[in-house]
Amino acid sequence: MKLARQLERLGTETAFAVSAAAAAWGAKGNKIYPFHLGDINIATPANIIEATEKAIADGFTGYCPGAGIPELRSAIARDVGSKRGLRYAEENVSVQPGGKPVIGKFLAAVMNPGDEVLYPNPGYPIYESQIEYQGGVAVPYGYIETESGFDLDINAIANAITGNTRALIYNNFQNPNGAQSSSEEMQELAKLAIENDLWVMSDEAYFEIQYGEPGESIVSIDGMQERSLILYTCSKRFAMTGWRLGAAIGPKNIIDAINKMNTNIESCTTHFIQKGMVEAIEGDTSGPEAIINELRRRRDAAVKGLNAIEGIEISAPESTFYLFPNVSSIMTHKGFSNVNQLMDEALTETNVSFCTRNHFGRPAPAEEDFYIRFAYSGIGLEDIEEGMERLKSYFEK
Amino acid sequence: MKLARQLERLGTETAFAVSAAAAAWGAKGNKIYPFHLGDINIATPANIIEATEKAIADGFTGYCPGAGIPELRSAIARDVGSKRGLRYAEENVSVQPGGKPVIGKFLAAVMNPGDEVLYPNPGYPIYESQIEYQGGVAVPYGYIETESGFDLDINAIANAITGNTRALIYNNFQNPNGAQSSSEEMQELAKLAIENDLWVMSDEAYFEIQYGEPGESIVSIDGMQERSLILYTCSKRFAMTGWRLGAAIGPKNIIDAINKMNTNIESCTTHFIQKGMVEAIEGDTSGPEAIINELRRRRDAAVKGLNAIEGIEISAPESTFYLFPNVSSIMTHKGFSNVNQLMDEALTETNVSFCTRNHFGRPAPAEEDFYIRFAYSGIGLEDIEEGMERLKSYFEK
Repeated sequence: MKLARQLERLGTETAFAVSAAAAAWGAKGNKIYPFHLGDINIATPANIIEATEKAIADGFTGYCPGAGIPELRSAIARDVGSKRGLRYAEENVSVQPGGKPVIGKFLAAVMNPGDEVLYPNPGYPIYESQIEYQGGVAVPYGYIETESGFDLDINAIANAITGNTRALIYNNFQNPNGAQSSSEEMQELAKLAIENDLWVMSDEAYFEIQYGEPGESIVSIDGMQERSLILYTCSKRFAMTGWRLGAAIGPKNIIDAINKMNTNIESCTTHFIQKGMVEAIEGDTSGPEAIINELRRRRDAAVKGLNAIEGIEISAPESTFYLFPNVSSIMTHKGFSNVNQLMDEALTETNVSFCTRNHFGRPAPAEEDFYIRFAYSGIGLEDIEEGMERLKSYFEK
Repeated sequence: MKLARQLERLGTETAFAVSAAAAAWGAKGNKIYPFHLGDINIATPANIIEATEKAIADGFTGYCPGAGIPELRSAIARDVGSKRGLRYAEENVSVQPGGKPVIGKFLAAVMNPGDEVLYPNPGYPIYESQIEYQGGVAVPYGYIETESGFDLDINAIANAITGNTRALIYNNFQNPNGAQSSSEEMQELAKLAIENDLWVMSDEAYFEIQYGEPGESIVSIDGMQERSLILYTCSKRFAMTGWRLGAAIGPKNIIDAINKMNTNIESCTTHFIQKGMVEAIEGDTSGPEAIINELRRRRDAAVKGLNAIEGIEISAPESTFYLFPNVSSIMTHKGFSNVNQLMDEALTETNVSFCTRNHFGRPAPAEEDFYIRFAYSGIGLEDIEEGMERLKSYFEK
C-alpha cells in the first residue's frame, strides 16, 4: 500500500543514528563515552517527583483542558514573564507534551504554503524538517566564528529577507554551537523582525541553563512580544527530558490556534505531570540549582580537555550544555574530507561518541570549516576527563 | 499579526462547550449529573501506578526511542495480535501520547491533497476536522437505526466510493452511537475496502470495553492486515485517560513513517509511563475487569432509566460506554427544532448534562431524527438513577 507523497519532504534527527552506532559499539563490550546525547543523566529533583505522585494518588488521572490546567498556565505565565520583564497571563500559555511540539504548531499557525521561513543552520534539525514538510521554503542563516564563540551573520539574515519571508526562528543559547547574542546583536535582529513584520519563534529551551548572568530574551525588546512565540520546556532546567512537558507562550490569537491544535492532536498533556510541574516552578529551587552546578563542573572539565588537544581552541560558553569546536586542522591532519569520517573513526579508536555539524541541518556548499558537537549533559565528570584524554591521543596521532 | 489561512479548516470538539456550560451551571450551586463526559471517574488500577512510580525511582526519566520502548512495543504487538488472531511484532507498533494522535498521523501518512476519505458521521469529530485540515475531502457515511442499535449504511458507503477515495475510517464499538458490526457487516465493509484498494484506520479505542463476547476486529479478515492501521489506547480499558498513552499498529511501512513523525512532533511518549503500561498489559488484570463490571452496572441503570421515559426506547449496547437514544418524539412534544435546545433546557431544568448528535460531525441535511448522547463513564450509579428520574419528569412534562 502506497504512502502519501508529502512524506518525501519529512526530515528527521539524524543524530539518532549516532546513538544507534554508539549502542552497537557498546554492545560489543566497549565502554562508551557518550558525548552525543542531548539527554541528561541527572535525577529529576525529588520535590517534583513527590508532587507528581501525590497528584496520581489524588486522582488527577483523567482528562484535563487541552490548553493545560489553569494553575500551570498561570505559573508558567508568571515565571516566564517575570524573568523577561513582560506581562503574560494564563491565556498566553498553551501547555505541550514537551518543547518540541511548539516548532510544528508555530509553523502550522503562521505559515502559508510557499512562505519563506528563516532558520539557523547549523541548528536543531527539526526546524528545517518541519518548514519543508509543512510546505514552506526553509531559508538557512549561519554564524560567524569569533574568539569567544559565534556571532549571528546579521548581514546575511538581512539579505535573505524577501517579500515572502513570513517568520524567523531564533535559538539564542544555541544548539549545537552554544552561541549567545550580545544585547546589541539581539537588538539588530529584533529590528529586522519588526521592520519586515515577521513572526518570530524564540526557542528558549536553554534560557535557564546559565552559568553566568541570567539569560535575556529577544521577546523583551519593544515591539517583539506581539510577534513572538516562546518555546519553553521543563526538559533541561529540571532534568525532565523523558517526562514530556513544555509550553508555547505568546499572543492570545496564536495561543488560541495552538490550543485548538492540541484538541486535534493529543487531547491534553499528561494531567498529573502538570501538577508536578507547578511544584517544579513554584516550589523549592535547590534541585535545578544543583543541576546547574553539576553541569558547570562538567563544562569546565570538557572545555579544559578539548583545549589540551593540539589544533582545538574553544572558550567556555555561558549557557547550554554543548561545545562546538572547530576541528578543521584535525581534519587536515587526518586527511578526511567529511567530518563524519572523524566521528566514525573516533568511536572505534577511542570509544568516544559525538555528533558533527552534519547532524544539524544541511550544510551550505560554501562552508569551509569543520565542527563536531559535544554534549556534556549525559556523561559524568570522570568519564568526561577520561574521554577527552582518549580523544587527545587519537586526534594528535 | 495574521495567522495562517489553513486554520479556517481546523475543526474542534464542540463537546467541550457542553463541559463549560455544565461547569458554569454547577458553579451557581447546582448539582450536575454529568452524562456529557467521555472521561472515566474510576481510579487507575494500583499495579499500574506502582509500576510507573517504580520506573520513576529507577531513573526512567530521560528520553526514550521515538517509536516507544522495545518492551512496550512488543507487549502491545503480542496483546493486540493474540486477541485478533494476527501476528504483529515490535516493528508494527508506534507508541503514541494517547490514541488521538493516531488519527492525524494516519491521514498524514496516507492522504494526498484532494484525496477523499470516508468517515462515520455521527462520529468522533476529530476525523472530519483532521481530514479537512490536512487538505483532504471528508466524505461522511451514516448509520441506519434498527431494533437493537445501529447498522452501517453499507449501500451508501459503496455508492460514496470514487476513484479519488483513498481511505476509510471505521470505528466499530462506536462513539457516539455504540454501534457494533455483525460479522457479516464487517465482511461486507472489508470487501469494499479490498476491492477499492483503500487504506483503513480501524479506531479500536473501545475494543476492550465489552460486556458480552470479546470484540472482533475488521483487521482479522483476510486481506485487511496489510491495509489497516489500528488505533489503540490505554485510556478506556485501564481508566488512564489523563495519562496519555496509546499506539498505532500496522504494516511496517506506515509505522516507519509514523515513527518519523514522532521524532518531528513530540520526540517520545513519557518514558516511565511506558514502563507502567507494560505492567498494565502483562500484569494483574483484576483492575480492568473491575472497571468493566462497574461500567456494566452503570450501563444497565442508564438503559433502564432511559426506557422508563415515555417516547424513548433503547436496547443495551454490548460495548462502549455510550447511549444514543432517538428523542424525536420528545422533540415534537417540546416543540423544539434543534436538539441543542433540548440539551440547554434539560441542563437548567434538571441539572442533567449530555451531548447531542450535533457534537459528532456536521449533520447531513437529510437527517430527520434527533439523537442525544449519554456517557456513563464519568458518573456513579446513584447519580445515574437520580439523573434519569429528573430527566423523565422534564421530558414527559
